[in-house]
Amino acid sequence: MAGEVVLLDFWPSMFAMRVRIALAEKGIRYESKEEDLSNKSPLLLEMNPINKQIPVLIHKGKPVCESLIIVQYIDEVWNDKSPLLPSDPYQKRSSQVWADFVDKKVSGAAKKVWSTKGEEQEAGKKEFLEALKTMEGELGDKPYFGGETFGYVDLSFITFYSWFHAYEVLGNFNIEAECPKIITWAKRCMQKEAVANTLPDQKKVYEFVVQLRKMFVSE
Amino acid sequence: MAGEVVLLDFWPSMFAMRVRIALAEKGIRYESKEEDLSNKSPLLLEMNPINKQIPVLIHKGKPVCESLIIVQYIDEVWNDKSPLLPSDPYQKRSSQVWADFVDKKVSGAAKKVWSTKGEEQEAGKKEFLEALKTMEGELGDKPYFGGETFGYVDLSFITFYSWFHAYEVLGNFNIEAECPKIITWAKRCMQKEAVANTLPDQKKVYEFVVQLRKMFVSE
Repeated sequence: MAGEVVLLDFWPSMFAMRVRIALAEKGIRYESKEEDLSNKSPLLLEMNPINKQIPVLIHKGKPVCESLIIVQYIDEVWNDKSPLLPSDPYQKRSSQVWADFVDKKVSGAAKKVWSTKGEEQEAGKKEFLEALKTMEGELGDKPYFGGETFGYVDLSFITFYSWFHAYEVLGNFNIEAECPKIITWAKRCMQKEAVANTLPDQKKVYEFVVQLRKMFVSE
Repeated sequence: MAGEVVLLDFWPSMFAMRVRIALAEKGIRYESKEEDLSNKSPLLLEMNPINKQIPVLIHKGKPVCESLIIVQYIDEVWNDKSPLLPSDPYQKRSSQVWADFVDKKVSGAAKKVWSTKGEEQEAGKKEFLEALKTMEGELGDKPYFGGETFGYVDLSFITFYSWFHAYEVLGNFNIEAECPKIITWAKRCMQKEAVANTLPDQKKVYEFVVQLRKMFVSE
């Protein structure tokens, strides 16, 4: 049904990308409305009055906010194909803990890499690589964080891969040299249509981040 | 079964209290192990190596971390009584969004109230009262955030009530004067045995917070 599913979106947002991958995995048709975050739409302000952030999924006129909560919602409502979360309660919570780790540790450190300079940036790089190494430990020898199949943790983390080139150039370091297993895993995820079609080009993200960095750092 | 459910606990933690309320609501027998956070136990370091924080629920030897994720786990595994989350997917996600709001907005602002002074504390008080007013708006005329019954959002938020006296004395303000509906709601929750038996005395929490404050502020 036209207009049944609407995503308030922003192309370089790794949080919005998570929702797009989930929708693609489930084969759900939806309308993406690109937001101008410097001039938020009345629809965004109406649908997420509390923190006014994208992504917002509007399903049958009702909003769901926060990327991980949206992905859980999608997985539960469209439960006929491509399960994202494990059905076992313990494994489900374990997936949530790791996605939470991505939000609290990987994401915060990644931001320091591109939005600071000098000592603060060096500390951010160290923190970022430590977080990636912790993720490598959790991945172990499995093809995906979800085990044999791409799942919730993979989806939550892979969207940061589209920013890796920006982190590397702006932070002057090489992620593959430090965390080769993460890159192997990311390339494996990129072979999936839902991921490859969702993640924007790393060079395009880099150009965006260079502009964004100017709002944080004077060089 | 003895030892089947163990909680790595800390009595003044509003996050640990959430888990205790959930366990009480479900009538689950468990062993609480009080942690000394200045000298964490080998069991805590083993069970939560990533961030080493309480609460951790150990069920049949396996750890679940992060208070809200633990509560979801309890609700799913012991699903025969006192449901905490709504079964409707939309209402379930809406509950998660509000519990998330408590973690991101109420909790952060509350910390500023007791752990800072001067302008920073004034800003914290303003932010804290704004967050409570947002919660008041969501509560509306319902007896509980969960509607007619005590639920996930109530459980996530009520544990902060045990710190209200400390916020008021250290912040020199009166919460009831600003947000009377929150106090009415809190007193309603306190009539529930699982809540009343779990929350420590506000005066005892105040004495704890006075000591804790010395680590943050020199006056």
